[in-house]
Amino acid sequence: MFKAIQTERIPVPDNVKKELKRILGDGRVLDDEVDKMLYSYDATRIKMPPDVVVLPQTEEEVQKIVKICYEEGIPITPRGAGSGYTGGSIPVKGGVLISFEMMDKILEIDEDNAIARVQPGVITYRLQQAVEKKGLFYPPDPASYKFCTIGGNIAENAGGPRCVKYGVTREYIMELNTVIHTGDIIHTGRPTLKDVAGYDLTRLLIGSEGTLGIFTEATLKLIPKPKAKKTVKAIYMDIASVGQTVKDIFKAGISPSALEFMDKLAINAVEDFGHYGLPRDAEVILLVEVDGNPKAIEDEILEVARICEKNGAKVEIAKTNQEAEKLWEARRALSPAVAKLNRTKINEDIVFPRSYLPEALPRLREIGKKYNLKMVNFGHIGDGNVHANFMINGLDPDEVARAEKAVEEVFELALGYGGSITGEHGVGITKAPFMRKQFSPVEMDIMRKIKRVFDPKDLINPGKMDLD
Amino acid sequence: MFKAIQTERIPVPDNVKKELKRILGDGRVLDDEVDKMLYSYDATRIKMPPDVVVLPQTEEEVQKIVKICYEEGIPITPRGAGSGYTGGSIPVKGGVLISFEMMDKILEIDEDNAIARVQPGVITYRLQQAVEKKGLFYPPDPASYKFCTIGGNIAENAGGPRCVKYGVTREYIMELNTVIHTGDIIHTGRPTLKDVAGYDLTRLLIGSEGTLGIFTEATLKLIPKPKAKKTVKAIYMDIASVGQTVKDIFKAGISPSALEFMDKLAINAVEDFGHYGLPRDAEVILLVEVDGNPKAIEDEILEVARICEKNGAKVEIAKTNQEAEKLWEARRALSPAVAKLNRTKINEDIVFPRSYLPEALPRLREIGKKYNLKMVNFGHIGDGNVHANFMINGLDPDEVARAEKAVEEVFELALGYGGSITGEHGVGITKAPFMRKQFSPVEMDIMRKIKRVFDPKDLINPGKMDLD
Repeated sequence: MFKAIQTERIPVPDNVKKELKRILGDGRVLDDEVDKMLYSYDATRIKMPPDVVVLPQTEEEVQKIVKICYEEGIPITPRGAGSGYTGGSIPVKGGVLISFEMMDKILEIDEDNAIARVQPGVITYRLQQAVEKKGLFYPPDPASYKFCTIGGNIAENAGGPRCVKYGVTREYIMELNTVIHTGDIIHTGRPTLKDVAGYDLTRLLIGSEGTLGIFTEATLKLIPKPKAKKTVKAIYMDIASVGQTVKDIFKAGISPSALEFMDKLAINAVEDFGHYGLPRDAEVILLVEVDGNPKAIEDEILEVARICEKNGAKVEIAKTNQEAEKLWEARRALSPAVAKLNRTKINEDIVFPRSYLPEALPRLREIGKKYNLKMVNFGHIGDGNVHANFMINGLDPDEVARAEKAVEEVFELALGYGGSITGEHGVGITKAPFMRKQFSPVEMDIMRKIKRVFDPKDLINPGKMDLD
Repeated sequence: MFKAIQTERIPVPDNVKKELKRILGDGRVLDDEVDKMLYSYDATRIKMPPDVVVLPQTEEEVQKIVKICYEEGIPITPRGAGSGYTGGSIPVKGGVLISFEMMDKILEIDEDNAIARVQPGVITYRLQQAVEKKGLFYPPDPASYKFCTIGGNIAENAGGPRCVKYGVTREYIMELNTVIHTGDIIHTGRPTLKDVAGYDLTRLLIGSEGTLGIFTEATLKLIPKPKAKKTVKAIYMDIASVGQTVKDIFKAGISPSALEFMDKLAINAVEDFGHYGLPRDAEVILLVEVDGNPKAIEDEILEVARICEKNGAKVEIAKTNQEAEKLWEARRALSPAVAKLNRTKINEDIVFPRSYLPEALPRLREIGKKYNLKMVNFGHIGDGNVHANFMINGLDPDEVARAEKAVEEVFELALGYGGSITGEHGVGITKAPFMRKQFSPVEMDIMRKIKRVFDPKDLINPGKMDLD
């Protein structure tokens, strides 16, 4: 599933190129080989170049691009920062790739209504910085937040550590402008907390991975910025106690703003990478953050520490924001650290109902052992979202074959507990073969028919989600 | 728009009645005139009887009912408690009405994962009581929560006062079982906070007003029960100061768990009804509730009181839960009090982006004056959701005609500010003529095509939302 599925690739004929250049000017229609390579891949490292890359600056330009391409039967693939883990922005069938790097404006931050209007290419971090200056807060924080875009976040319904308390991207999108296949714009949603007129097309579009239309503008919901936060680190010698801790924290009525874990292999990978002073013999490290009213979190962090200790953990409360930052640095070092373990990282993001994690985590490791693969598990234990990483040599066909089998078992494990094959990354091309494991033929049929409503010729981000 | 639109009514032929009786037994297939009348209306008081009422007890029975009706071309209308304000559960085309009164079980409350599995007929209040006993909380609180059902809440994406802090029903539905036209069940969503596999059919179904399929089971997300709450009452002599107060509260980083207002006519209606000691000369009364950590809300309620006073209000903080309860009693008395003002209540639930309320509220009143109608405004000022009530004599054709014009202007006012024609009640039949005011022909076309995907023969709750 991580080798590219080569499909028919549709070239862009000269008359269309000419028309695109007429609309955008020569400088924003790229078709030399280097440019095409630059836009051919995402974080999966699968490479499939588009035939033409276009860089629109306005909604109207996107409308014209979509209209002409659709009429001429040319596939259209939207792309944010290409930071996805499932190939969602890869132009599987060639054609035109729309990059949103020049539609990266924050159009408005409306403090009175606590909303922001943005173009799809705005970088998540830049938006967060801008609204935090005004005492507001945009919670979704995917690991790639420093370079990924809001448009991509909406397409994938991105998550992150804070989602355990604040919810995912879906909960923060109030309105969308979407260019559909005809070149028309549909405006869905309202900039209000309540709006129940008509079908909820906004949320149908969120998480649709760019397969239904091309987003050109979004209104985001903002909330007051939490006034303070506190972090505790807890070191465990067994997995069951971690599970009990998570249960106890929620039972105590505490809603942590992050509840992250890393297993022994992850801890050691981080230590090899940067010497953060983590104990190499620990089975699991838990990082718990609470945020909100300063007085309330003072109580809550002590309660969390007590719960961790009661469950046998060695506990450390960060005394200052700097100390907390250091604890989180080790967590953030995980991705690059794990990447060093081997040439190819297969990063799956399965979800379990959280109470099953103590039982499921050892079974996950068993899968790694069974196929003799380096496996590192970490992630968002508070919402049951586990990043199960197999670190393989992608050039070794035997190892690739074993990894493919292992990934399939990982998905089956998650589904067996009533979980999901993906909590954050989406389906794209890498998980497309597993859609049928999660959905019945009747459910697949309905999704395909909805795809057809929005995209009768199957040209809008084709080849994704097993919906063609 | 509040008189019933008579359409072709489709009778249920004897062979189908016989088959329904075979499936359910004689006692759960009702077709005498009294029974038909009992299931013919909702809170709009529009009456359109079904031809047969069925009372399934299991998902399998619903599957069989839908399958046979759909094959035979008979309309199917699902009904919870019939508490809706837009005719969503009225069997416009006759046929079979499915009442969920015998599918009212709480199937499971899973404390470890903070979820509940329920049948659609469970009463919202009963669920809330059951989960609160376990320290958990189901926030959505439509005014009818003591008798409305979760199935109806999902169909209408119900709101309520607490939604300003906690979000609407949509945010608390994790999984749905839905019987589609073939009699098949689609299972959408996962009992996990994160799940991004496939299109978000769950949220497409939420708020679809029963027009896409028949819900038979839902998994609800629960959160920890807030440990304490505090209420403040603020009395204002002008509307602009109320708007400024709302802005200031959110600017202070406070997220109230309720932020309700009533205008002068509402205050006087309540006083006529029950003598709650409200000042009849006040322009607006604001009720603000904060909940959460006891120490945090102690600070917050004082801050809220300070903000109200700074904006010129006379302020009273409830010292005990009993005192708070008394303040809320007056708010809850509003509906029956307003109902006494005249024979017919036209209850609209428009939404404005909240910063426009100080400007929009006087304009709302102007509409009442222009058409010489008794008008009462109250509602959820924190999320911009205003209940604009015209109290008319529905037997007076002239007054009805004026009210129809006034309602149209009310909708135009809301849409002019970028708001919505409905924040909580849905579209049903009463707002169906106004769908085209909120949505473009292209948007309407997409909604109609989605309706067709789920309901090719237009038999599932037909005649609603202008989608036929």
